[in-house]
Amino acid sequence: MLRKITPVLIAILCLSGYAQNNVKEDSTIIKKLYTTSLVNGKSYEWLDYLSNQIGGRLSGSINAQKAVEWGEKELKELGIDKVWLQSVMVPKWTRGVTEFAYIETEPGKTTNVPICALGGSVPTSIGGIKAPIIEVKGLEDLRKLGSDQIEGKIVFYNRPMQPDLIETFRAYGGCVDQRYSGAAEAAKFGAIAVIVRSMNLRLDDFPHTGSMSYGDLPNKDKIPAAAISTNGAELLSSMLKLNPKIKFHINMNCRSWKDVESFNVIGQITGSKFPNEYMVVGGHLDSWDLGDGSHDDGAGVVQSMEVLRLFKEIGYKPKRSIRVVLFMNEENGLRGGRKYAKVAQNKGEKHVFALESDAGGFTPRGFSFDCDDANFEQIESWKSLFEPYLVHYFAKGGSGADIGPLKNDNIVLAGLRPDSQRYFDYHHAKNDTFDAVNKRELELGAATMASLMYLFDKYGVK
Amino acid sequence: MLRKITPVLIAILCLSGYAQNNVKEDSTIIKKLYTTSLVNGKSYEWLDYLSNQIGGRLSGSINAQKAVEWGEKELKELGIDKVWLQSVMVPKWTRGVTEFAYIETEPGKTTNVPICALGGSVPTSIGGIKAPIIEVKGLEDLRKLGSDQIEGKIVFYNRPMQPDLIETFRAYGGCVDQRYSGAAEAAKFGAIAVIVRSMNLRLDDFPHTGSMSYGDLPNKDKIPAAAISTNGAELLSSMLKLNPKIKFHINMNCRSWKDVESFNVIGQITGSKFPNEYMVVGGHLDSWDLGDGSHDDGAGVVQSMEVLRLFKEIGYKPKRSIRVVLFMNEENGLRGGRKYAKVAQNKGEKHVFALESDAGGFTPRGFSFDCDDANFEQIESWKSLFEPYLVHYFAKGGSGADIGPLKNDNIVLAGLRPDSQRYFDYHHAKNDTFDAVNKRELELGAATMASLMYLFDKYGVK
Repeated sequence: MLRKITPVLIAILCLSGYAQNNVKEDSTIIKKLYTTSLVNGKSYEWLDYLSNQIGGRLSGSINAQKAVEWGEKELKELGIDKVWLQSVMVPKWTRGVTEFAYIETEPGKTTNVPICALGGSVPTSIGGIKAPIIEVKGLEDLRKLGSDQIEGKIVFYNRPMQPDLIETFRAYGGCVDQRYSGAAEAAKFGAIAVIVRSMNLRLDDFPHTGSMSYGDLPNKDKIPAAAISTNGAELLSSMLKLNPKIKFHINMNCRSWKDVESFNVIGQITGSKFPNEYMVVGGHLDSWDLGDGSHDDGAGVVQSMEVLRLFKEIGYKPKRSIRVVLFMNEENGLRGGRKYAKVAQNKGEKHVFALESDAGGFTPRGFSFDCDDANFEQIESWKSLFEPYLVHYFAKGGSGADIGPLKNDNIVLAGLRPDSQRYFDYHHAKNDTFDAVNKRELELGAATMASLMYLFDKYGVK
Repeated sequence: MLRKITPVLIAILCLSGYAQNNVKEDSTIIKKLYTTSLVNGKSYEWLDYLSNQIGGRLSGSINAQKAVEWGEKELKELGIDKVWLQSVMVPKWTRGVTEFAYIETEPGKTTNVPICALGGSVPTSIGGIKAPIIEVKGLEDLRKLGSDQIEGKIVFYNRPMQPDLIETFRAYGGCVDQRYSGAAEAAKFGAIAVIVRSMNLRLDDFPHTGSMSYGDLPNKDKIPAAAISTNGAELLSSMLKLNPKIKFHINMNCRSWKDVESFNVIGQITGSKFPNEYMVVGGHLDSWDLGDGSHDDGAGVVQSMEVLRLFKEIGYKPKRSIRVVLFMNEENGLRGGRKYAKVAQNKGEKHVFALESDAGGFTPRGFSFDCDDANFEQIESWKSLFEPYLVHYFAKGGSGADIGPLKNDNIVLAGLRPDSQRYFDYHHAKNDTFDAVNKRELELGAATMASLMYLFDKYGVK
């Protein structure tokens, strides 16, 4: 395919100021990166191990520690210049005995519904709680209802993700305040627990967990918070319409512990020309505990490792120092991302570029960039190089949670943007498993990331 | 999102000669089409019925007839202007008792491998056949080996799909001659059967059927042809390397019957201004028999039906006559496509545009067009209208098998191009089932098709 496309590329890129020999070289190297990833890639094999041999790896768990050891071992086997662990204290929260909930229409008449505790929630009292339930469409409804109608009840947040937004992360952004702040806000009105509709565009039976915060609420005021599956939310809502006096029972045994030590796993190829300029590629090693975290973010982890492996494999020696960082604790604390940035700052390390993959192992569509106009102009001049790989999306916007703390005026931050249509079918739920990842889609993502890393390494940041 | 994007769109499109009020109107209508498909669509519900209540529907089968009756009924319920059946004689081939195959390393030592007959194959003799097997990488190897080495043996075609081609249909195109012509060619060298590696980029246990032809081979010379799963092919190949003398047993009970009557299902919204100019949107109603044909081509069928329903739903009255055609017998004969074109020609119906969806119900990436430069220029002027929906791919190329026979100098033919990475995981195999289709991806495809139909209806063909 490349042979056909190269003349067109050259024509287009020459117009944008590109020198012809650059285009040829860049096209050739990018082609090698894609071919190597698709024909002789290691990302899928790595993900198989991480997902199926280790599994879900919530911060502070034994599995998270196993993942750290695995990541260190695999990076060392790549024969790159340096591999090390960076200590970081992380929160530890455990789910305990599987949660249990039912709707009670009258004493003895109950219907079970699938729920799961939100990460960081306090448990219910032993034996669970049972109370009337009141449905709201968001935080703003609490004030309208007031303490009179909320006190002593369970608040049920049921605003669904908006289906007509093409980018599903926007739909997520429009709902996730219910999950993150729902308990803290409802507690202020005297609610005794909250149930949140899962952040899922599909109707199914999987409850989706995720992080939540009590803000500055005193311990004694904290109330349990759980997610209910979308089918469960639809059922509960329709039953409430028939009979607003139904009760809801919920039993949760989760618990927060003292912080424990964990690690970011870091590997480096030292730059041949500018060893003191750092470029980071990463994903997060921790995951929620319900599935095996294949899309979130096993995919990002193995794709990031693959970037360095691909460089080695095709014999590309970067000018700048390329670091892969497997961040710990993105899901419920972001401690790894913050720690990495703090250490970098303390050491005065000059970070020029960081790329994160944390949006699933789906077909790559492009990147989102957090950068200034001059850098974005350079990025746009590279667009045609990605066209043969059907990678079209280059836009300004966010990047990734773990690399966010690196932000300053002199760094370009980027996030891989895979196709997002299926992401929230799996996100933070027990069906986020290895079988939901397609090998080619994963490998294409790794090659797309490697290609961008290559271009930034070659041309630098403006 | 639209409000943010419209000013940019207007700027871009004005530059390309677009009038500002056109852009506004087109953006608004396209937004309505997408929103309606995603929020209030019917394509997924239709596919559920077609896949799960009817199932696989090979031409000439009872299920194919059920699908015809279902399609007619559903189109009538849309309240469009005309719905009718178009009679067409189709081949009838049945698989019979499930096929069976094993590798025999020595008498009594056997390993079963998953195979399935290719569509149109003759059966083995009763009780099956057992013979030495010889591996080739393609048709061209036959001549090199010659009758001496092939006579009396089973030929095993084992050229895999090329993994580094980004568009998987190209990889398919590079292998499918083994399936289509493998038996006819091997028979000329005295082979007694052929086994073909499944057209699948993944390693798994599903054999993938598909059409094959004996060309002008006399009946007495026809030899059985089967597909073997990719895992089976790898196993067989490695066992052959260890011991070239192993034998292969295969038992197939398939059978060809006399042609039977079936139907294309056609629905029409008659044009308000140019009722005698026809625009076709379609997919094929028949499928292979192993799965339920959800991706191939249940998706195309329900998306095409949805185009007309969306027009009704948003109150858009097309200027030209819009026909949905559910073609019969794409898989093993193309009789439906040929019949539709022949009748159109006999009646002197002026067809100006035809669009087919037959590449799976995955996220739409764009379209491929079979048209002249003037029309392609007009199409390119519409590209920005699709950008908010992440639809970027507009290229010259093929369209669809069923609409191919309509080709002449005055028609624009187009094919929907969904993401192709997963397509051959399911294509013609028993895992091509409803659960492999994502609702949003399917609905986005329908809206993308409706948007293109709208633009061609409004602006006509150059």
